[in-house]
Amino acid sequence: RWQTQRTIGYPQLQPGPTNRISDVHGVKVGHVTLNEGDIQTGVSAIVPNDDNLFVKPLRAGAAVLNGFAKPIGLTQLDELGILQTPIVLSNTFSVGRLYTGVVRYSISQNPEVGRELATVNPLVLECNDGFLNDQQAFALTESMAVDAITSAQSDFARGSVGAGRGMSCFGLKGGIGTSSRYIPELDATLGVLVLANFGRLQALHLEGLAIGEWVETALTEVAAQRDAGSIIIVMATDAPLSSRQLRRVAKRSGAGLGRLGSYWGHGSGDIAVAFSTAHEAAHDLDDSHLEELLCAAAEGCEFAVLDALLQARPVTGFRNHTRMALSDVLDYLATTIV
Amino acid sequence: RWQTQRTIGYPQLQPGPTNRISDVHGVKVGHVTLNEGDIQTGVSAIVPNDDNLFVKPLRAGAAVLNGFAKPIGLTQLDELGILQTPIVLSNTFSVGRLYTGVVRYSISQNPEVGRELATVNPLVLECNDGFLNDQQAFALTESMAVDAITSAQSDFARGSVGAGRGMSCFGLKGGIGTSSRYIPELDATLGVLVLANFGRLQALHLEGLAIGEWVETALTEVAAQRDAGSIIIVMATDAPLSSRQLRRVAKRSGAGLGRLGSYWGHGSGDIAVAFSTAHEAAHDLDDSHLEELLCAAAEGCEFAVLDALLQARPVTGFRNHTRMALSDVLDYLATTIV
Amino acid sequence: RWQTQRTIGYPQLQPGPTNRISDVHGVKVGHVTLNEGDIQTGVSAIVPNDDNLFVKPLRAGAAVLNGFAKPIGLTQLDELGILQTPIVLSNTFSVGRLYTGVVRYSISQNPEVGRELATVNPLVLECNDGFLNDQQAFALTESMAVDAITSAQSDFARGSVGAGRGMSCFGLKGGIGTSSRYIPELDATLGVLVLANFGRLQALHLEGLAIGEWVETALTEVAAQRDAGSIIIVMATDAPLSSRQLRRVAKRSGAGLGRLGSYWGHGSGDIAVAFSTAHEAAHDLDDSHLEELLCAAAEGCEFAVLDALLQARPVTGFRNHTRMALSDVLDYLATTIV
Amino acid sequence: RWQTQRTIGYPQLQPGPTNRISDVHGVKVGHVTLNEGDIQTGVSAIVPNDDNLFVKPLRAGAAVLNGFAKPIGLTQLDELGILQTPIVLSNTFSVGRLYTGVVRYSISQNPEVGRELATVNPLVLECNDGFLNDQQAFALTESMAVDAITSAQSDFARGSVGAGRGMSCFGLKGGIGTSSRYIPELDATLGVLVLANFGRLQALHLEGLAIGEWVETALTEVAAQRDAGSIIIVMATDAPLSSRQLRRVAKRSGAGLGRLGSYWGHGSGDIAVAFSTAHEAAHDLDDSHLEELLCAAAEGCEFAVLDALLQARPVTGFRNHTRMALSDVLDYLATTIV
Repeated sequence: RWQTQRTIGYPQLQPGPTNRISDVHGVKVGHVTLNEGDIQTGVSAIVPNDDNLFVKPLRAGAAVLNGFAKPIGLTQLDELGILQTPIVLSNTFSVGRLYTGVVRYSISQNPEVGRELATVNPLVLECNDGFLNDQQAFALTESMAVDAITSAQSDFARGSVGAGRGMSCFGLKGGIGTSSRYIPELDATLGVLVLANFGRLQALHLEGLAIGEWVETALTEVAAQRDAGSIIIVMATDAPLSSRQLRRVAKRSGAGLGRLGSYWGHGSGDIAVAFSTAHEAAHDLDDSHLEELLCAAAEGCEFAVLDALLQARPVTGFRNHTRMALSDVLDYLATTIV
Repeated sequence: RWQTQRTIGYPQLQPGPTNRISDVHGVKVGHVTLNEGDIQTGVSAIVPNDDNLFVKPLRAGAAVLNGFAKPIGLTQLDELGILQTPIVLSNTFSVGRLYTGVVRYSISQNPEVGRELATVNPLVLECNDGFLNDQQAFALTESMAVDAITSAQSDFARGSVGAGRGMSCFGLKGGIGTSSRYIPELDATLGVLVLANFGRLQALHLEGLAIGEWVETALTEVAAQRDAGSIIIVMATDAPLSSRQLRRVAKRSGAGLGRLGSYWGHGSGDIAVAFSTAHEAAHDLDDSHLEELLCAAAEGCEFAVLDALLQARPVTGFRNHTRMALSDVLDYLATTIV
Repeated sequence: RWQTQRTIGYPQLQPGPTNRISDVHGVKVGHVTLNEGDIQTGVSAIVPNDDNLFVKPLRAGAAVLNGFAKPIGLTQLDELGILQTPIVLSNTFSVGRLYTGVVRYSISQNPEVGRELATVNPLVLECNDGFLNDQQAFALTESMAVDAITSAQSDFARGSVGAGRGMSCFGLKGGIGTSSRYIPELDATLGVLVLANFGRLQALHLEGLAIGEWVETALTEVAAQRDAGSIIIVMATDAPLSSRQLRRVAKRSGAGLGRLGSYWGHGSGDIAVAFSTAHEAAHDLDDSHLEELLCAAAEGCEFAVLDALLQARPVTGFRNHTRMALSDVLDYLATTIV
Repeated sequence: RWQTQRTIGYPQLQPGPTNRISDVHGVKVGHVTLNEGDIQTGVSAIVPNDDNLFVKPLRAGAAVLNGFAKPIGLTQLDELGILQTPIVLSNTFSVGRLYTGVVRYSISQNPEVGRELATVNPLVLECNDGFLNDQQAFALTESMAVDAITSAQSDFARGSVGAGRGMSCFGLKGGIGTSSRYIPELDATLGVLVLANFGRLQALHLEGLAIGEWVETALTEVAAQRDAGSIIIVMATDAPLSSRQLRRVAKRSGAGLGRLGSYWGHGSGDIAVAFSTAHEAAHDLDDSHLEELLCAAAEGCEFAVLDALLQARPVTGFRNHTRMALSDVLDYLATTIV
């Protein structure tokens, strides 16, 4: 099926017009990508809308599937249930610099932040790209957070770009993937973007098949995916959910990961964040109406990871480590097996 | 494959000798089953060992995947990380009676409990069997908790028995299922028992195939699984884990449920508990050694649910509601499709 | 000051008209009290309003300060953020029976609960009154939950009544206490009711003084408060808070307990629940407006405990154990010291 | 009493030899202090011992009393229960830089961190010193984290030093304070260090007296403490506790804060972390033995804040904002009132 249709998986729900997180009106994504020998890394920013989020925050909720991770911003997000900045993704060692960059970005919009006004709570999330990228080079700078934010657009690149540049997934090349699902019952859209850097090859399931072993035969040189992986899942919706409800939605990403063969490994920092672009109150939305959103969150996460795998191009980086692209492997397997 | 091998699914890890939770040495399971017209319900008890658990508690941890549920005992289990009684499973309306029954059982072993001694913390978990069973009849009595505990044995029945008598799963007959996995790296076993009562038929995936629609054609009368489902997952291991580590292990059941098509629905109380039968300290077991246990927990949960589905026999109960057995449906499909 | 004014403590905020939880419009409290030799126990019910709460639930949030406790209902309350039944308080061994009683109460209002309708989530909380009451007698019956609920009124008894009958507090007689605070900034009231059964005498602070040692001299026979204490704090407000905000409010009870000398002892199940009687949405209430409510929650809890201590009358019960009343002790100390 | 004894408060438990966190063997504290006009800020580091913590981590647990805060490191600490670096404290805008600094410090000890080895999890905690310090100057550099760590010693300065340089507490000058308590039952010590930057003046209680109003009269110019306060509490113990037990201990700081009049205000990021310097396993330490440690944690936190208030010297900084010292105010009050 791969050969003729170039797709994987059987979605049950209806994607939005572009099958991207930007199908949720106003959401944009920006990337800064570094591709210089040992330096294979970058920054990606999810910008919910054009508002000054410090002044007009959005409701948000998060779920930590496995906490082997160094996120910044989750403590306050849990307490207050709001998002005050764009969401910035990158490698593990860079979250400090990017935090500072997002603070500076917020100051540029709100000159009294941290003075007469309260401080701002940047949301910066990471995966460990140390297999393909030399994190110790600290190649990313504070200003690149701002660059990623200000270059965001609704039609954005996926695969081995931005924060996804150096990421691995099931022993293959991972990176940025996206999907969306339309929920007729709510006339709402759920969009998903992942930074996929998790999973061991033996565990990979595609369309329910444990395909890992076959893939292994196609890899000239198999380097085991290190257990210091991770996946960050960002969900956006225009449904007017409360932060508690958004946390419920975000959590369902775990079911989607399971479908691909993941068991949320010990060393994998698997974290999901969901925000709503709606400002109106949502108390009238009884939780029983969440059913299709929960279903969409699981499936949307699954397909966003598949998108990351299929969009990724091969990358060779730090110490000449290489990750191949799933699409190349599938082409090869289609040739050899048939 | 079903026709010839009578199994479903492709396990990657090695099961224990009997592929049951009782492969963990000392663990036993007991049932009380009521099968009288509108009354299709029961009690199941997981007995970790022959010790007086109030005097010699076991380390334990729990994970709430979705909290639409009425468990008793989780608050103290989270705080102290120990299990003081056998684990008792039943229907939602009966947890009060069974709590009292377990308190009485503990008093029989420790006459000063709640007097000179502290109180005991029974662990009683439930699913809603209201489709096949008239919960309002309150047919279960306090003493049935004791009966289930004292009748426990290592070779126990599965399917439509005990607490599983009235349960539904993916619109089919659910109930009690079990599995085990051996972890060579740790020379340890992980056993799983589920009370499976979750999932909507359209979402069912078997061996990665969305088989729900086919099954639907085989059901003469399809009654949608109500959203008031649930699954309880109980895990036992002889690996000397801390309560924090056991919580990590328990949580991986969520990945296993995802593989079957579940998205942890809004109305499904999906709760997992794991305990260790080892008394020695485990601080030397670095968390990096958990990797295979986490993998086993996800797979063990997936296959315990499959076991429940395959072992279940059809049941007709309250208001003549009926749930068919998956094995019958698969036999029928094998005949008609081929 | 005690002698002339018969009060303790220096409140900073303004109490409501009656300084009771029922200052929040619609809230009522009912008691069933057993006083028969070894049986010194009871049930108390907090009824938020006259509505059928299963049909028209209230937003609610809870905080577990210390989880050595056997509450029923918190898991679903955390997940969905709503209260579906009156809140019932009692002794530890009775929560099972009272759960069943509340289920029956809800069935009486909603005949299809647990059949065509989902199950209901009773909220039943407990303290261990085993020093004054023989819990092993299981003297409370299922129907007493209903009796407490249906007898609720806004003008209710405090001290050694209802669930408070057998409770101890700082080695003295504890029980039911209440308070309220009016928040002008929000034109809202916060009401508090406690079931006080915690604290060791040496730790007691009144008006900032470590008065425990003095009190000790006044007690003819000092029986150490067992560490199996607890306190349940129930808060009601007419401010339109979300469940997340109510959890923040409930949590502040911990600061109030600290002021009395408590350190949330190991064996003390210290649990707080807050609900809002407002049905309208509250998303416009920015969390910065919570400030005075948080302050009121801490102070309201402190003074509700003082109320319990001052309203309590001495009780002699199980095995002739006795707890004296603080007011008697203060009278005695006033005589002897001056 | 202040005039003659120069102390405040009535401790009930016995302090260690120096009444500092360094009474726990091996614990050291280092400061970097900036005092240049608008720049009144710094870094403080708590160094648990001389080990390479990445190779030989310590068990640790944390409690978020109120999550209006930007900590780095808590997610992984919660998941794995270990401390891999010294704990670094500073102002809110600097946590990013200091995170990077601590990563560099760990790399200097472990050259393959983030390459062949997993990444490291720095623990960086903050309070908002924006009243006295211009955080927008970003005056702290990455290397200052290392300077604070490498300059640590057991005999360290308190008050308006290090991260405490710009902090305010109850409208007065706050900063670094410490205390310790010896627990004879366990032959163990609990040490506490706080970065105190919380509380509104009206709420201040000293020795149980609401002294806030009196203090107000002594302040020539009263600037309300902004709600963007916070307190970080770090606890060290040589008792061999598990991470779960350490979380229980850390949490009790909330009771201590309550005694001073705090209600864990909306805008106050109140976070406590506790670690154990013992490497041996602690499963034999039943939780019932924690009782005195919990008591010590509450009292130790209370007195560490008092220490911060009494050791602090007045500071004038950003925009000529000034905070007076409590000791000066008490001297003034002693003169004028008597």
